[in-house]
Amino acid sequence: MSPTTSGRPAKPATILDVAAAAGVSRQTVTRAMNGMPGIRESTRERVQELARELGYTPSRFAKGLVQGSRTSVGLAIPDLTNPYFPAFASSVVELATQRGWHIVVDDYGHGGRSGLDAVEHLAPHVDAVIGYLGGYADQAQAALGRRPLIVLDEIPGGAAGGINFDYARAGKLAVEHLRTMRRRSIAYLDACESRHLGLPPESRDPLASSPLDGGVPCTVRGKAVARLLDGTGTPWSLLAAEETAGAARAAAAALLRERRDTDGILVFNDLMAAGVLKAVADAGLRVPEDCAVVGMDGIPLGELLTPELSTLALDLREVGRAAVELLDGLLTGAIEPGSDASRLTLVHQLILRKSA
Amino acid sequence: MSPTTSGRPAKPATILDVAAAAGVSRQTVTRAMNGMPGIRESTRERVQELARELGYTPSRFAKGLVQGSRTSVGLAIPDLTNPYFPAFASSVVELATQRGWHIVVDDYGHGGRSGLDAVEHLAPHVDAVIGYLGGYADQAQAALGRRPLIVLDEIPGGAAGGINFDYARAGKLAVEHLRTMRRRSIAYLDACESRHLGLPPESRDPLASSPLDGGVPCTVRGKAVARLLDGTGTPWSLLAAEETAGAARAAAAALLRERRDTDGILVFNDLMAAGVLKAVADAGLRVPEDCAVVGMDGIPLGELLTPELSTLALDLREVGRAAVELLDGLLTGAIEPGSDASRLTLVHQLILRKSA
Repeated sequence: MSPTTSGRPAKPATILDVAAAAGVSRQTVTRAMNGMPGIRESTRERVQELARELGYTPSRFAKGLVQGSRTSVGLAIPDLTNPYFPAFASSVVELATQRGWHIVVDDYGHGGRSGLDAVEHLAPHVDAVIGYLGGYADQAQAALGRRPLIVLDEIPGGAAGGINFDYARAGKLAVEHLRTMRRRSIAYLDACESRHLGLPPESRDPLASSPLDGGVPCTVRGKAVARLLDGTGTPWSLLAAEETAGAARAAAAALLRERRDTDGILVFNDLMAAGVLKAVADAGLRVPEDCAVVGMDGIPLGELLTPELSTLALDLREVGRAAVELLDGLLTGAIEPGSDASRLTLVHQLILRKSA
Repeated sequence: MSPTTSGRPAKPATILDVAAAAGVSRQTVTRAMNGMPGIRESTRERVQELARELGYTPSRFAKGLVQGSRTSVGLAIPDLTNPYFPAFASSVVELATQRGWHIVVDDYGHGGRSGLDAVEHLAPHVDAVIGYLGGYADQAQAALGRRPLIVLDEIPGGAAGGINFDYARAGKLAVEHLRTMRRRSIAYLDACESRHLGLPPESRDPLASSPLDGGVPCTVRGKAVARLLDGTGTPWSLLAAEETAGAARAAAAALLRERRDTDGILVFNDLMAAGVLKAVADAGLRVPEDCAVVGMDGIPLGELLTPELSTLALDLREVGRAAVELLDGLLTGAIEPGSDASRLTLVHQLILRKSA
């Protein structure tokens, strides 16, 4: 349209013009123009030739597009095999992607790695980290320096941001519901396997590592539930199992053999509750008539079980949104690290389906 | 023990001596000595002072430990909410961690991102990529240059390595089993939603995007199953739904309303099969007596369903092992990119639980 002597447009060509002419992505043009690896030599030559023809010169900005100006966030989670974590991760990734951020996930709970290991490995590549670190908030924030760290489900300590959950409130909802159902012999199944959380050994409570042993809960949510059940004045059972459906099934089977009057079981999380539902059925009991079961987390799995699982549900989309918005505030400076605004407490909702 | 004039050990101090003296990790010493970000200024000063006292000088090797000499592998998967992918990812991460590799996961199926986008974003940070890319093998390998790419479940094209699954064999196992059960009206529920696979729009087949429309399957496994069912000479139904349990439940409900004699349903994957089990129960039918259901994938979810799901199972640990060992061979040069040895075909096993 614009008349020029050379037949080229009057304005300088942009990276998009070159990308369109070469039929490649903007990233490929950037790689070709900056001598970066990752493209074929023939592509590099073709792009450079077209760039010369079109009069395109790469800008610093375009260089930054590939070399890291896009916000990159590490997401550290301990165990992809517990469906809570992929559901949480998916929520964070979706909402971060909407902001144009790039998320890389480190599934760290293998081979004795800890949440701190995950942060140390992510650190060279990211502008920030969000994670379930299992007690390493301070050290992980130190490893990141001034880059913000958001920890979930632990005391945030020196972390720039922290998201916690009100387990006392959640436990109260469940215990009150079970009492409304006139349940007289309630049990709580806690998780006491720190394998996937990379917790230091001293945080393990050996008393609580086997069912029916009269120990104390070793998780924050277990301690909150125990206080509530103690407050009811009626006896209740505590048991604990590794954080898998199979281990929960075995622990619940032992419970139902030894305390046949058990008529309500509150479970550490939905994955373990899936195993408890199986154990109740194995024992020839009906859910919820003979024994009600309540899970915690609110993952999609609960709706696929039979009977469908009643659960203390987090809205995982809202948890993801809280993490992403908190990080956004910390990155822009709108939220001060360690301030009241950087500490969030989210609440569960009791979703009643069929199991209680 | 060794007498020296300064009271220091006779041998030069190592990074481990400094780390022990400062009570920090080896990585922290490396950061402190190389002016890298990610540690507190007070830590940096303390480490540098101790290093001077101990006579420690950082080596090139120690620098490499943090800056990337450890093998870093990107894992590109389209959808963490389908439990197959976290199960697969967890297997790869576990086996790679045993080799001392570090894995970062990119859950790319959000916001219109493709498998190629994932590889382009991982590329600056990794030595190799393993992934379900949904048709971008060639472009993704080009983006990685000489660094190996292993693609799963697609034609590997120019990718250094490829792992495929023998769907014809899998379908044969299922169809033969359903015929042994004397099923006369079999349906196959395919997945036809490319949202999470980042497929180009032209690969979608609109004819197959709604149930009972007489279209053709649009997935590789669907095409393999269709050939087998056509070969039986008896009529069968094809339906398709988005790759979620809810969509599968709705599609199966429609099928059971319109073709009430359906007595066997083979399903694209286990997640969708979970929805089909719900639909059969909703219709007041018994599984497997009135209608048998067979899934595909072999994820742990299947054992938590009621009735427990019969399925064409991949051994996910073996899939992870195959990917990691193939990548190891490509990285060491023991396997030539694109050679016969770089192309693997894995098989499913029919696991009969309760649903068929």
